Amino acid sequence: MNITIIKIGGNIIDNPESLPQFLDLFTRYPGKKIMVHGGGMMATKMAKELGIPTQMHQGRRITSPEMLKVAAMVYAGWFNKHIVAGLQARGCAAIGLSGADANLIPAHKRPVTDIDYGEVGDVYPEDVNTGIISTLMFKDLVPVVCSITHDVQGHLLNTNADTIASTLAIALSPLYHTRLVYCFEQKGVLSNAQAPDSVIPLITRKTYLKLKEDGVVSGGMLPKLDTAFRALESGVKEVFIKHALHLGDNVESLLLL
Amino acid sequence: MNITIIKIGGNIIDNPESLPQFLDLFTRYPGKKIMVHGGGMMATKMAKELGIPTQMHQGRRITSPEMLKVAAMVYAGWFNKHIVAGLQARGCAAIGLSGADANLIPAHKRPVTDIDYGEVGDVYPEDVNTGIISTLMFKDLVPVVCSITHDVQGHLLNTNADTIASTLAIALSPLYHTRLVYCFEQKGVLSNAQAPDSVIPLITRKTYLKLKEDGVVSGGMLPKLDTAFRALESGVKEVFIKHALHLGDNVESLLLL
Repeated sequence: MNITIIKIGGNIIDNPESLPQFLDLFTRYPGKKIMVHGGGMMATKMAKELGIPTQMHQGRRITSPEMLKVAAMVYAGWFNKHIVAGLQARGCAAIGLSGADANLIPAHKRPVTDIDYGEVGDVYPEDVNTGIISTLMFKDLVPVVCSITHDVQGHLLNTNADTIASTLAIALSPLYHTRLVYCFEQKGVLSNAQAPDSVIPLITRKTYLKLKEDGVVSGGMLPKLDTAFRALESGVKEVFIKHALHLGDNVESLLLL
Repeated sequence: MNITIIKIGGNIIDNPESLPQFLDLFTRYPGKKIMVHGGGMMATKMAKELGIPTQMHQGRRITSPEMLKVAAMVYAGWFNKHIVAGLQARGCAAIGLSGADANLIPAHKRPVTDIDYGEVGDVYPEDVNTGIISTLMFKDLVPVVCSITHDVQGHLLNTNADTIASTLAIALSPLYHTRLVYCFEQKGVLSNAQAPDSVIPLITRKTYLKLKEDGVVSGGMLPKLDTAFRALESGVKEVFIKHALHLGDNVESLLLL
């Protein structure tokens, strides 16, 4: 059986014009599927309104206990339930989950080294409880997973949504033919950052190394592609990187080993 | 098969001393069970911090769209996931749900009469999707339901947690021997409001009418008891009203027809 894990970024969720379009496309997406979402920007905005400072270290968020509470509220509370209600209205039998629910994704609080990321959880495919996913899918339910996990000692943790998506995909790959789709605000991996249509249709491990060497791919795309190739090496069959509003067509970058 | 629906109030959830005690008691509570919670006070506090006014009409909250968002964040986001993580840490296989998840509790936006309650959902036992409850319970999962519902047209709604609890209990009563437990900050229904130990151990429909007539029971207890007796008349076998921290013993008021 096929299963597709579709990760959607906060910029689409937080946009009242693009979210309904994306939910239409997700509803029509064929086969068994799981949505994974975060929602970073609204958490930052909410934290600001509450007077909670947003701390970053080299582009990564440091999660204070106050920030974790905001993240749980925004991701698991507002966005998750807003998305689930939107999907239900479209006839898609969505059910929202965090990593704590049914112990879906136990996490390990990131150890403090030179930098303390705070309430951040690292996750591993072997810890994922795939049974609940199978149970829900067998009942034709569509899991919508937010990027909040827990340490199985009573503490919620914040985990990167891209990582959640790839971890779920890897965990499910021994059971299903698993595909991973990263939706973001570009049409795919671009050969020219200034040309939004310069999508590289196919990237293999070999061409990725070349693209990296040549500096064609850089910045925030690097960790996304690294995560994608790790997923492929760990059993995921295909990874797609594409624009959320192109979910229904084949404008995309396909990543294969 | 027996099932117990246990409703817990916001004052216990919001208290870092009483919540762990309650979660211990809930974990040890025998048999199949469902927790229902709201979390009113923290939503009010959060709304205040965000500069959103809290509007009330005769003791009932009027839910503006901004307030609904706060309620979804606090109930479905922070409290629900915090409780689920706390139960998981205790070995209780909790899974958090709102009324939107798996379309568990479709609601009807309350019609505007002389007063517009805003984003408030009225719920009916015949609309509840008991199948998902049975599916989860069959897998030994324990649903933790927050008091957010949806209109199946993409909108979340705010619903009174006492009502959610009784509606779930009534909906499940054709399938299970159903018991409803209202936990709150008193040891039960008191014969003397000044004497916390003056718990009335047994209240029947007949004695309730007498207590009401004599003015022994008044104020916020009246809607609770009305809801309880409606549940009993609709198939629920027993209703208990008791202190959250007495969940494990028989200090309580038992309500029977």
